[in-house]
This record gives sequence, C-alpha cells and structure tokens, in this order.
Amino acid sequence: MTIKDIAERCGVSVSTVSRVLNGHPDVSEAVRRKVLQVVQEVHYVPNNSARDLVRPQTNAIGLVVRGIGNPFFSKVIRSIEKETEKFGFTLIFHQISSGEDELSAGAGLVQSKKLRGLILLGGQFDYTEEQIAVLRVPFVCCSYTNSFGGLKEEVYSSVSINDEKEAYRAVMQLIGQGHRKIALVLDSKRDHSISELRYYGYRKALEESGIPYDEGLVAETGRFDMEDAYHAVRRLIEKRNDFTALFVIADSMAVASMKALADTGRRVPEDCSVIAIDGIQMSAYTVPTLTTLVQPAEEMGECAVRILLDMVENNAKNRHCEMKTTLRAGGTVASI
Amino acid sequence: MTIKDIAERCGVSVSTVSRVLNGHPDVSEAVRRKVLQVVQEVHYVPNNSARDLVRPQTNAIGLVVRGIGNPFFSKVIRSIEKETEKFGFTLIFHQISSGEDELSAGAGLVQSKKLRGLILLGGQFDYTEEQIAVLRVPFVCCSYTNSFGGLKEEVYSSVSINDEKEAYRAVMQLIGQGHRKIALVLDSKRDHSISELRYYGYRKALEESGIPYDEGLVAETGRFDMEDAYHAVRRLIEKRNDFTALFVIADSMAVASMKALADTGRRVPEDCSVIAIDGIQMSAYTVPTLTTLVQPAEEMGECAVRILLDMVENNAKNRHCEMKTTLRAGGTVASI
Repeated sequence: MTIKDIAERCGVSVSTVSRVLNGHPDVSEAVRRKVLQVVQEVHYVPNNSARDLVRPQTNAIGLVVRGIGNPFFSKVIRSIEKETEKFGFTLIFHQISSGEDELSAGAGLVQSKKLRGLILLGGQFDYTEEQIAVLRVPFVCCSYTNSFGGLKEEVYSSVSINDEKEAYRAVMQLIGQGHRKIALVLDSKRDHSISELRYYGYRKALEESGIPYDEGLVAETGRFDMEDAYHAVRRLIEKRNDFTALFVIADSMAVASMKALADTGRRVPEDCSVIAIDGIQMSAYTVPTLTTLVQPAEEMGECAVRILLDMVENNAKNRHCEMKTTLRAGGTVASI
Repeated sequence: MTIKDIAERCGVSVSTVSRVLNGHPDVSEAVRRKVLQVVQEVHYVPNNSARDLVRPQTNAIGLVVRGIGNPFFSKVIRSIEKETEKFGFTLIFHQISSGEDELSAGAGLVQSKKLRGLILLGGQFDYTEEQIAVLRVPFVCCSYTNSFGGLKEEVYSSVSINDEKEAYRAVMQLIGQGHRKIALVLDSKRDHSISELRYYGYRKALEESGIPYDEGLVAETGRFDMEDAYHAVRRLIEKRNDFTALFVIADSMAVASMKALADTGRRVPEDCSVIAIDGIQMSAYTVPTLTTLVQPAEEMGECAVRILLDMVENNAKNRHCEMKTTLRAGGTVASI
C-alpha cells in the first residue's frame, strides 16, 4: 500500500493525501476524513507509518553487514559511506551476526525504510532465485559472488576478488621461493564459501607445479576465528614437522598462526614462511610484517555503490566486477 | 514535543489527540482541526511522524555505537545483544563514526523507533543536562562516564572502568619491576576523554613513587589509531633513548608501538617493557603476548542492559557501575 493507492481509493490526488497526512489546513473536512479513514485501514501494513507513506521515493540505500567485528569490513564500510554521500544518497546501516540471514534482514530494511537498493557486505555464496526474490530492489553482493549457487549473472550484481585465482597466486609465491611442503590453514574445505574457493586455488597451484596434494598438511579451523586458527596450527605442528611454509586464507588467522609458530619455537620466516590474503590493518604490525595479498577494500566499496546507484537511477543492468589484489611484500616469506 | 504536550496545547486529552492522529471519526471537526494544526507546528521536530506519536510503547531498546571497527566494542556488542534477547527485548543497532554525535543519533533513533531506552557505546565525557535532554528515555553510557561534564549522578547511568585508577595500576606494574624511565603513548593529554583520564593515572603513579614527570617521555598520537601510534613511538625513539618501559593507553596502539620498537632494533621486553589497557583479541597474538589490563567487556554489556531494563520496566533510578580490569600477564614486562 502506497500513498498512490490511498489517493486512488479516496479518489483524490496524491498531493491531497500528502497534505492531509502532514496536517495542512487547506483540505476540506470531508476529504480529510475520508483520507484518514483509509490511512487507518492500511495500518495493517507493518512498519509502514503514515509518514512513510507520503514519501514513497527515498534517496536511501541500505547496507547489511554480516559479521560483527570482521576487521576487513571496516575499510569497505567507510568507503561505501563516503561514496553514497558523494552521490547525495542516504545510507541506512544494519549489522547482523554471521549466524543471521542477510536476505531477510535486507528485505525487512527495504520495506521499513523504503530503500531503493541494497548492498550486502558478506553473505552466502549459494542463493537461489527464489531466495533473492524477497529483496525486490536492485542489490549488490559485496566481497562475494554466487559461486556455489545457480543464479544467472543477470539477476544480481557483485563486486569481489576471484578467491580461487588469488589463493592460487599466493601459493605460487611460495612455490616460486622453492617451497614444496606447503601447509594450508582454512576454516573448512567444504563450506560453500571463501574457504572452499581458496582451497581450490591451493590445490590448483600444487597440481600445476607437480607437487602432490598431501591431506595431512591441511589444517581446518572449523570457524573463521583467531583462536581456532591458533589451535589448528598447534595441532598441525604436533603432527607434522616437515612443512616449510603456510598459506593461511585470511590475515587474522595468519596472525594467530604466526603466534602458534612462535610459541613452538619456530622462527618466521627462517623456519617457516607465511603468506595470506586480505591486507587488514592488524597484519601490518606483526613482527615481521605479514606478506599478504591486499584486497582493494576502498575500491570494492566505491564500485558496489556505483553499480547500485547506476541501477537505481538509470535502470542499468546488473553487473559483476572482479577485482585484483596487490601483493604486500612483508617479511614473512623467505626462499629455501 | 510529545503527544502530551500537544494535548495540553489543545486543551484536550491525550487519547483525543491519539484518535485524531489515528484517523478515528469520533472526534469533532473543531478539535480535529485544532489538533492537526498543532501537529503541523511541531513538524519541526525531526522524525516525529503522526504515526510515531501514537505508538508510545515498544519492547525495543537502542544501541548507538560510536566508532566503526573499534575492536574493543565487538565483544561488548555481542554481550548486549545476548542479554537484551534474554529479557525478551528487541535491540535496534545503530553505528556512527567517531566524528558524529551520539546524542542526536540516539534521539533520532528513540523517536523513529519508539525506543524505551538507549545504550550509548562510546561517547563524550562532557555532556551538559541540556544536551542529554534530547534523549527523553532512560539511557546508559557504556564504557564511559561524565568525568568532564557537570551532570548530576542521578540524571544518567553508566558502566565503565575507572580509567584513571586503571592507568595508575598499569604504571605501578612497571614501577614494581624497577622501571623509572617510563614513556607514555596516548592520543592526547587534553581530550576530555579516556586519554586524558589515563594520563592523570600515569602522572599519579609517578608522583606517588617519587619519579619526576618528564614531558619528553610523553608521545601524543593525535588520534586513536595504530598508524599514528607507530609514528609517535618512532619519533619518541629518535628523540630519546633512555626509557626502559612504555605504558600505552590502549592495546591496539600498544601493538603498533611494539612494531616501532622492533623496527628500530629494540627487543620487547629485554630492551623495553610494554603494558597497556583493554584486552582485545589481537593483543593476545603478539610475540610476546602483550601484558595488559583486560576490561570486562562481556560484564560491561550485561550490566548496561540490566541497568537500562530495570529503569525501563521498574522505573528504577539511574545507577553507576564501576568495573575493574584483570591483569593478563603476557610476556612484555620484564624487571630491570
């Protein structure tokens, strides 16, 4: 139910409904009464207050962030805020925990705030068309794509790196320095998410380099968490003593892995090299500085806003933007 | 301006105003006209839609978080969410940058969402009664108090550590290990905030221990930021070579300070001890582990929710809860 529907029901113009709802005196009492009656009826529509009804077009887009305290997202969020403001739009910010569903959170926000579009920062890689139908506005998946789902390219937009390619690139850095016993630290090999994609990149790099895959060198943490990563690497070290390098799929887990190496008397990079992907602030302050593939966080935010506003304002089609990382050569990779 | 104020201005009852705003027909046209006129006048108050005025009771409280990506807040937020849910309330989450004003953000949220109470996570230490009047619902300052303002204790609630006392305690740890040349890393000595309070604690510890205050050992970063802390410590090292310990007012800045020490060839703790306050996740993974006074993040969140809900549900009075830190003895403090 919109202000237009009310106007139609009452047989008056949209601006008349608006004047009544705003309390302007220049409306006849009969019309006012009729309008208010209809408004009363439509009170059933959740979150659709009378005030909202008179503002069917907002200049607001929404940002649903999944995962509280994900350090990689901080920079992306600031960039999205800045870019949204630059184009005169308002950003409605909503954060959910990683256990919640970004699609229903986004759908609720679209309805209650009359959003014209939505950016999802973090989410599942396997939406179905049925699932995304709840959103009803253009949306952009930021930092992920539908790699494990069946969505056609034209029904959604995305901005992300190619996780498999970048993982491949990270592992090739190690192989280029002579490493062949390369352990992998990841959440899970089968999570239908970033972790699984980066696992494929690791496998591919080994395969292309003629290095046999060794299941015993894969440390699964179970969760995206520093503490779990620390313990996974401790267990790996207890079990195996022959790896000379670690590829960790994310910076924060790499920092925890370096701690596990230090606590077991291994020097980085002399005894073990470490490389990761992300480029979060914290990893610039490890000793030595973590060598990592830095995701272009600011560009990702900007690009997500531009794709979305182009759809919202110009009816542009859905687009997919694949971004590249930049190698930050820290001090954690040595040749052997 | 509330529905009660409108009723008073119009000389009618609150329920009459409510009926007009809901479009009920059983109100005389004269009264309706008068009420709508007054409503129109008060449209100057932002976010005060007609519908909002008639829905004074929800089961929602708000959480305004100032500072995106502040790692200390992540744990507090999770605890507030959990505790709010436990008591059957809904939490409306709103994050603002540290440049924004938490009071106007909070006031907007209270009005638009009909909140019954508010938790402010991070904010200014020098509110006036006039400033807090905009909130109109019970509120709890979480992680800070009104140390630099003139608020009477009974007009607001707070949950925080005693920043001055805890800084004193941290510095006394260093003095107890024989250190007398203790440098200080902080945002600013005069920020009317955490930094200034912790500066007083540092001064007090020196004074009580008969150690003269040495302005040249104070490194101001200007901002609460890792990069700024890194450079401030680099500048300090260039200027002075005689300090044997660093008290850094926050963990994240301590991690950056340790990096500056490492990059200039100083070993921690052999050449320089480091102690901080906070206990964020990252500081458990430095090599060696940062010695720090851990703030009880979870208890702070729980306590804030309980104080607030006690006011909201039982009309309890404002309360102030001072919490204590716990020393996590890492490996960054050595005796000399």
